[in-house]
Formats: sequence, structure tokens, C-alpha cells
Amino acid sequence: MAEENTVLIGNKPPMSYVLAVISQFNSGSNEITIKARGRAISRAVDVAEIVRNRFVSDARLGGIKIATEQVHNEEGRQSNVSSIEISLVK
Amino acid sequence: MAEENTVLIGNKPPMSYVLAVISQFNSGSNEITIKARGRAISRAVDVAEIVRNRFVSDARLGGIKIATEQVHNEEGRQSNVSSIEISLVK
Repeated sequence: MAEENTVLIGNKPPMSYVLAVISQFNSGSNEITIKARGRAISRAVDVAEIVRNRFVSDARLGGIKIATEQVHNEEGRQSNVSSIEISLVK
Repeated sequence: MAEENTVLIGNKPPMSYVLAVISQFNSGSNEITIKARGRAISRAVDVAEIVRNRFVSDARLGGIKIATEQVHNEEGRQSNVSSIEISLVK
């Protein structure tokens, strides 16, 4: 599910995702969306802040959205999980 | 540091903070700011979503800000931590 201009945050160290964002900017994108769900939300904020403050100083926050998504666990039961989308624009 | 109209998210279960937000709305506030740093950021998003979706259906998102704060650890060394502020308005 590799959408263009999107970096989906998982359980790797934040720097993996920072590098993914930087390389998408370097390949010509003007807007990158950083997405995360559940526990990874904190890491998504870290990634956006590290990119902005340390690596791509002309990137600014385009907008931040939060939402609730419904997921199904292994037993087929439904539960709610929070999600975030942080847009970086340059 | 108990600011009015602010709920600071720590390590308690999300429902503790959901109750704090609801009682501030019930005591007459029209805008509540939910603040968190580091790992608690995910919980702050959970709290905002639970309040909005389950308890205060006329509350809407007023705005979301992310930032980097400098903190000093026990040895006096400085490190950076991400923070979030989520505003709920009704």
C-alpha cells in the first residue's frame, strides 16, 4: 500500500521515516503526508518535527488531522483506533 | 501548574482525562486544550477522539499544534521532546 507522497509510520526507529520523508522531498514532491495509527502517533509527530527542525528547514506544517478508524482484530472483532495525518509542505 | 481550560495528559488511563475534559465543559468552558508530550501524544489523540465521538457530540476540533520542547533530564543534559496541543471547542 505504498501511496505516493505518503509516509506510513510503523515500529521502526524514527530516523528511518525521517529519511523516507527527506528522499520524497528530494525526488520532487512538494507535499508529504505522514500517517500513523495508535501508539505510532507519537512517533509521527517526532518525525515531522525532526524533518522540519533539522533537515528541511523550508518545510512547513500544511495541516494536521486526527480521526478514529475501525479495525478488526484476529478474532474478527471490531475496535477503534485513533489516527493522525500530518502534512508537510515546501 | 493547573491551567484553566487545559488538560495535561500523563500516564493514567485515557478515561481519567476524558472525564477531566467532560467536567471542564460541564463547568461552563467553551474551549478546552488537551496537551501532551512524548509518548503521551497518542493518548492525547485518543482522549480528544473519545470525547468528541462518545460524550460531547457538539464538540469540534478547534485546532491542532505540534512543537518541539527542550527538557532537562536528571543529569542536567538537554534533550528534545515533541509536544501536541489539541483544542476542543463547543
